[in-house]
Amino acid sequence: MANPSLLILAGDGIGPEVMAEVKKIIGWLGDKRGLVFDVSEDLVGGAAYDAHGVPLTDETMAKAQAVDAVLLGAVGGPKYDTLDFAVKPERGLLRLRKEMDLYANLRPAQCFDALADFSSLKRDVVAGLDIMIVRELTSGVYFGEPRGIFTEGNERVGINTQRYTESQIARVARSAFELAKRRGNKVTSVEKANVMESGILWREVVQKIRDEDYPEIALNHMYADNCAMQLVRTPKQFDVILTDNLFGDILSDCAAMLTGSLGMLPSASLGAPMANGRPKAMYEPVHGSAPDIAGQGKANPIATILSFAMALRYSFDRGDEATRIEAAIEKVLADGIRTADLMGPDGGVPVTTSGMGDHIVAAL
Amino acid sequence: MANPSLLILAGDGIGPEVMAEVKKIIGWLGDKRGLVFDVSEDLVGGAAYDAHGVPLTDETMAKAQAVDAVLLGAVGGPKYDTLDFAVKPERGLLRLRKEMDLYANLRPAQCFDALADFSSLKRDVVAGLDIMIVRELTSGVYFGEPRGIFTEGNERVGINTQRYTESQIARVARSAFELAKRRGNKVTSVEKANVMESGILWREVVQKIRDEDYPEIALNHMYADNCAMQLVRTPKQFDVILTDNLFGDILSDCAAMLTGSLGMLPSASLGAPMANGRPKAMYEPVHGSAPDIAGQGKANPIATILSFAMALRYSFDRGDEATRIEAAIEKVLADGIRTADLMGPDGGVPVTTSGMGDHIVAAL
Ligand SMILES: CC(C)[C@H](C(=O)O)[C@@H](O)C(=O)O
Ligand SMILES: CC(C)[C@H](C(=O)O)[C@@H](O)C(=O)O
Repeated sequence: MANPSLLILAGDGIGPEVMAEVKKIIGWLGDKRGLVFDVSEDLVGGAAYDAHGVPLTDETMAKAQAVDAVLLGAVGGPKYDTLDFAVKPERGLLRLRKEMDLYANLRPAQCFDALADFSSLKRDVVAGLDIMIVRELTSGVYFGEPRGIFTEGNERVGINTQRYTESQIARVARSAFELAKRRGNKVTSVEKANVMESGILWREVVQKIRDEDYPEIALNHMYADNCAMQLVRTPKQFDVILTDNLFGDILSDCAAMLTGSLGMLPSASLGAPMANGRPKAMYEPVHGSAPDIAGQGKANPIATILSFAMALRYSFDRGDEATRIEAAIEKVLADGIRTADLMGPDGGVPVTTSGMGDHIVAAL
Repeated sequence: MANPSLLILAGDGIGPEVMAEVKKIIGWLGDKRGLVFDVSEDLVGGAAYDAHGVPLTDETMAKAQAVDAVLLGAVGGPKYDTLDFAVKPERGLLRLRKEMDLYANLRPAQCFDALADFSSLKRDVVAGLDIMIVRELTSGVYFGEPRGIFTEGNERVGINTQRYTESQIARVARSAFELAKRRGNKVTSVEKANVMESGILWREVVQKIRDEDYPEIALNHMYADNCAMQLVRTPKQFDVILTDNLFGDILSDCAAMLTGSLGMLPSASLGAPMANGRPKAMYEPVHGSAPDIAGQGKANPIATILSFAMALRYSFDRGDEATRIEAAIEKVLADGIRTADLMGPDGGVPVTTSGMGDHIVAAL
């Protein structure tokens, strides 16, 4: 069998720096564990715009469709803020999600013990936190038509459309229930069914799938505003949170911040199985391109390395190697090794982006 | 001149209990301060549905249009969860907002010093917090058409429409800038302009109004997901947050929870000036109907009393009396008087809903 293939799209800002550390891990897996990947690299976001005038070329899109998994760094930066909507760096990312049909975005919000004091929340509220947010990623108001800025009478109107079909809801709901089975057997489905009809349909479809196919899973429904509150108040009440594209965008960032260390949070975006049985997949850190610290060796590569660990688990059925990488990271943190974002009241051993990568490889 | 008029719509759950305490304050203002209101009362939400089969009758709607200010308690409860969308308790509230055209929803998130330890956030992150969220309340996805559940091919699709005209954005932006002038001179405008065209128009209109008419106000723009993060991370960076109906719903609940005491948070919903110069207005606590504790004397009436204080300030130009009420509440809290929701590690003097109202009147 051919080696599994990876496409690295490092993107903008700190993207290339953090991705360089992932390459060290990939190298280690090849050298020491006989797990060799065919790795190719290309441009996305502002970097692609600078080279080609678009945030993602058709050629890169085709490559992404052909590989087993895409690893993405981050996109965007102030340099591109004034670009037209259609060529903004974000459009490259959104095109990948949409055309690869990566409908299930998995965003774990985990609080690392060594870092619990970094949270703005009290330690006992967040210590041991382990939430999995499953966000629908290819539908809803991000992609619904009609959309745009139109003229009506003598003024303009901005329009976007929230749109969910039963099957779009059903497939991501199944992803959430499947994950819950391997975790705490609990799903909280989040919408605004008290205000939006799309939320009523969402609630109904999710409940039906639970009743028919996952009777062993505890399912509750929560309004998005209440969920934001509950995340701040008692986040440990949650196991899996299932929600739509826009609510998921906001709630997952809120949950991420509870952990106190955005530089630590990975994500996986999964679609339907390909011919080889692997899901279409893209992995990326939750943090952005952080242009303010780019190129200074200050970035924390852990979120991106953990995203690669998710790739090992969800795309390559190598949960053992994923767990090994996660354990190495916990060890390095417990040893007090800290990138700039993790330097706190407890001191620690300051390292650069590259230093952190080296420590993790050493711990492996 | 005739006495100013108030319509009390106590609603469901704890609504009537907390409103009873506001009536004590109204009585005190009449007796001791010569400020006499013409008070009428009516039904809204589940209570209206039980009596009339609709969550708000046309007669009540007409009364609300005719008075100087509406005081609302809370609506909803499990008893009504299975009702049709069109007659759910929430529809009564949404009809009031829409038909009175209450486009500016003011939601202060303030952390009371005596209660800072109630927050799930660390004391230094939230002590002294004082944010004003200005949420657009009559447009956006809450009211946009088309909306509903439709059949397409062999499945159903749920659709809602996010819709903002320039003038809808402009008027609420002005409300935010006016408020900022009397506060910290800073507005953060929140949308998802990186993903939604309605957000692009929002950003453009807000910036234009700032540049033309409020050059002294510092304006920054923030994506909604980042705002959720920043609220959790460093909430004191904000002065006035200006945002749309749906983002405002979620972010204001998130901000509310930072303060640690939902039972303390008031809101004002304001529209255009009426013939007498007063704005159309409705005042209500941020908390819900809390059916689980209804009728037990456990509810905290302070949010509703503070909402009435906002009425004195924004509808009746009696900021002096509003400040007096707020000071009385601070004193009662500093004395350790506590409803059940405020009983914490520091102990305190437990009181009922009614007891809290009496203490506040005594402190006046
Ligand atoms: C960059 C942006 C388009 C994106 C989104 O809104 O989905 C980001 O916030 C995310 O959550 O991945
Ligand atoms: C009750 C509900 C319709 C309402 C809303 O979504 O606006 C509530 O959450 C609020 O924020 O006032």
